[in-house]
Amino acid sequence: MRTRILLLAGALAGAALAGCSPAANQAATANGSANAAMPAAADHEAAIRAITERWLELVRNRDAAGIAQLYSEDGAVLPPNAPAGIGRPAIEQVWRDMMAAPGIELTFAAEQIVVASGGDMALDRGTYRLAYDGPNGRVTDTGKYVVVWRNVAGEWKAAADIFNSDLPAA
Amino acid sequence: MRTRILLLAGALAGAALAGCSPAANQAATANGSANAAMPAAADHEAAIRAITERWLELVRNRDAAGIAQLYSEDGAVLPPNAPAGIGRPAIEQVWRDMMAAPGIELTFAAEQIVVASGGDMALDRGTYRLAYDGPNGRVTDTGKYVVVWRNVAGEWKAAADIFNSDLPAA
Repeated sequence: MRTRILLLAGALAGAALAGCSPAANQAATANGSANAAMPAAADHEAAIRAITERWLELVRNRDAAGIAQLYSEDGAVLPPNAPAGIGRPAIEQVWRDMMAAPGIELTFAAEQIVVASGGDMALDRGTYRLAYDGPNGRVTDTGKYVVVWRNVAGEWKAAADIFNSDLPAA
Repeated sequence: MRTRILLLAGALAGAALAGCSPAANQAATANGSANAAMPAAADHEAAIRAITERWLELVRNRDAAGIAQLYSEDGAVLPPNAPAGIGRPAIEQVWRDMMAAPGIELTFAAEQIVVASGGDMALDRGTYRLAYDGPNGRVTDTGKYVVVWRNVAGEWKAAADIFNSDLPAA
């Protein structure tokens, strides 16, 4: 009997913990309940890191249209030595141009992610590594980036994305 | 008598409005009153624009130490073709180096300011104009920037600042 009560208590505790999961919180927020627990900053950070993994996969697949969907409708990509691309069609074109470099390999990783208290904006600062085949052989570059994420209807989207090289101008 | 009552009513209304000023709201927030009115997004945006005016004045005065104070303690400035400067001493050095260019003139202006719902983070995207005397005459450049502002103990500070040129690499 004591064992059965302990098992029941364990099951109830498990159910209570499940109610605290990010998925449950997201659902509660989406339902518009003002008293529902908000997703924690750690949950938001994990969501942003997961989108970054998807982004890297889209780069490997040279999928400029897919990458453009990671930005907000009025999002901006600000590449060095080229004009800003604002809005998804322009963003897609910037990515298409960048990924046209032969043998391009691009990776990036966050160094700092800070989520605003309201869970609707986040700062993401990190570094990138880039390589491609130039006319005189393989070109490699390292640099830094800032992405400002905005939570639009429960989905994190890149609202501004800007980067530049660490290396002296050629 | 009617006139005197109207004047008094006007004075009371003025006092009430003064209680709604950004400064009063800031003070209420700093005092930690949970029920105090939060400053509106427009107040935060105005505060950020005022700091930007101060920043431009510090650039005109070549005051790198003053500019470094506009950043958060762990803030980052990310200049093109140079390493990141993280923390105020490094930020001050980056600005000292940039402003050493002879006859430098630098201005910048926001195109988009978005304040997070909690009033603790803001996205600031804009453009810059730069000119200086190079070895072969006056050099001019235009480009774009992103500053992520964080509200630290009631004061807006630049947490990340990154920019790059619109012009093709020389």
